[in-house]
Amino acid sequence: MSVFDHIEFDEHEHVAFCHDKKTGLKAIIAVHNSYLGPALGGCRMWPYANSDEALNDVLRLSKGMTYKAAMANLNQGGGKAVILGDPRVHKSADMMRAMGRFVESLSGQYISAEDSGMSVADLQIMAEETTHISGTKASYHFAGEEADGNPAPSTAYGVFTGVKASVKYHFGSDLQGKKVAIQGLGHVGYRLAEHLHREGAELFVADIYPEGVNRAKEKLNATIVSPDEILTLDVDVIAPCAMGATVNRQSISTLKAKVIAGAANNQLASEDLGELLKDKGILYAPDYVINAGGIIDIYHQKMLSSNEALKTHLEKIGATLMEVYTRADEQNLATNRVANTIAEEKFKK
Amino acid sequence: MSVFDHIEFDEHEHVAFCHDKKTGLKAIIAVHNSYLGPALGGCRMWPYANSDEALNDVLRLSKGMTYKAAMANLNQGGGKAVILGDPRVHKSADMMRAMGRFVESLSGQYISAEDSGMSVADLQIMAEETTHISGTKASYHFAGEEADGNPAPSTAYGVFTGVKASVKYHFGSDLQGKKVAIQGLGHVGYRLAEHLHREGAELFVADIYPEGVNRAKEKLNATIVSPDEILTLDVDVIAPCAMGATVNRQSISTLKAKVIAGAANNQLASEDLGELLKDKGILYAPDYVINAGGIIDIYHQKMLSSNEALKTHLEKIGATLMEVYTRADEQNLATNRVANTIAEEKFKK
Repeated sequence: MSVFDHIEFDEHEHVAFCHDKKTGLKAIIAVHNSYLGPALGGCRMWPYANSDEALNDVLRLSKGMTYKAAMANLNQGGGKAVILGDPRVHKSADMMRAMGRFVESLSGQYISAEDSGMSVADLQIMAEETTHISGTKASYHFAGEEADGNPAPSTAYGVFTGVKASVKYHFGSDLQGKKVAIQGLGHVGYRLAEHLHREGAELFVADIYPEGVNRAKEKLNATIVSPDEILTLDVDVIAPCAMGATVNRQSISTLKAKVIAGAANNQLASEDLGELLKDKGILYAPDYVINAGGIIDIYHQKMLSSNEALKTHLEKIGATLMEVYTRADEQNLATNRVANTIAEEKFKK
Repeated sequence: MSVFDHIEFDEHEHVAFCHDKKTGLKAIIAVHNSYLGPALGGCRMWPYANSDEALNDVLRLSKGMTYKAAMANLNQGGGKAVILGDPRVHKSADMMRAMGRFVESLSGQYISAEDSGMSVADLQIMAEETTHISGTKASYHFAGEEADGNPAPSTAYGVFTGVKASVKYHFGSDLQGKKVAIQGLGHVGYRLAEHLHREGAELFVADIYPEGVNRAKEKLNATIVSPDEILTLDVDVIAPCAMGATVNRQSISTLKAKVIAGAANNQLASEDLGELLKDKGILYAPDYVINAGGIIDIYHQKMLSSNEALKTHLEKIGATLMEVYTRADEQNLATNRVANTIAEEKFKK
């Protein structure tokens, strides 16, 4: 099956297969939609079983970036790049330079950034060959941290503003005394916990690794629970910040929380679960809306914006969610469907 | 099957799938090899049965352009573009502009030119959006004709110098009194006939349309024969100037000519027929070497060269064939194999 007929092609504008014999680079760059601007999206390096799997991944992800960028109020389209190979085995500086040249050869249609299997150092090497890179450095400090290109602090802050907005919408209150269960205390999850703690939320945390949860217990007075239990707690908010698809038929059946608002990608195992959540009166913050802080950060790195401009932009995530929730209620639709519709209106599907 | 695994992928550098929803444009641009320079190659519009067929075509053709450009001593690589659709039904000026924008977006990696289903007028519309187009106009006159971007006069002149070189190599003589059978009297075939007539060759011509052969009979004293007989004549040279694959096991078995040198693409039904021709003592001018006048013309149009520079370059085709023939004899190899090897040495396969 060819690219145009691919089930995930869905109106992509440009899909480029790039091959550099000398370094063994095989990469696919996908530009889904550039109506709002050049396509921004991470470059992932992954040991795909075959190139069909890589094509599938890049098409799905670049389309997702269009929706995310539109809802993040960025004048950017959606794109993505994948490099086929095991980053621990096949990556080389020369390969990164070859990748940089391919990005450059697309004359700015696609702007690259970090993703799985790629480091800021890799992007810096790519940047020797192209200016169409973002996230290689940041000239500002954020949330008390010195930025190094890693957008996790911004993602966490964006999710935090999203949780606050969701609680406000559903309970009509602030975070003081609200019980929040965080699934996954990695780079983003832990920073989210810090923000929530500062605003008076009571935290319940779970992770398969002990380090983050132990620190949260000690510093943020969080209660540690097992990963198996975290989604079943009698809390106000569940914040999935680990793997995708944790919101599924089975987990929904035991869910007691009334708000789902977290950082993980692809939280719903399938889109039709949006209706199930609506029918059960559970408010779901569409994942790509609430976790857009990363792409917003990368955009502002590229623009060399002030810390203040970044912060203001991140705080718009709350307002965007309010718009989604309001329209969903007015039209009696699931929030994930409404988010898709609003995004499509913006990028003119 | 994905692009990287495609049987015709053969070390392509860049294969871009381009889609413009508004105009319905679906196109594939392939850059096979750019070691010698940007990839030059025509843009074809064709009602492919499906996009796999289109991919197959563009990969095969762009690879062929790398070999052709290398043997034509151009500092250009090989590329090709195909637009999926029926040019009589689906083509529009807006579609041509969208195609121009895609060509432009590749920042000059690929330089487009005319091919089946596309006219000079179409290229001129594409050129509103990109400078990476050649063959839209010519500022010089050639071989007594006013050039309009159509490279047929140059192709014919190049084939003529190739026939002359081949006769010189095989018979040690010039064209005076040599019997040449031309299969196909179209734009290129007829002009070739004129050149050969001027040098004293005796012509035998065949075509499925009567116009060209009747004119050749009247003006060039040519003998008209039926298309079925043309390859079986007792002549010195056969010049295939019509469809491909006319040199096959069956036609070789009845061939009396000692030289095959013509303008058609893909003259051999399969590469291994090169050895059969060698064993039978028949000198074969590799098609993409002798018919490179078109790409040479397009290159010089782009360069705004003088008529003299173009003519000198076209006459190098004879010298290149001499090099192929000499090495083939020295190494006891088929001429088509030797041409491939020399090309691969040039573009560093």
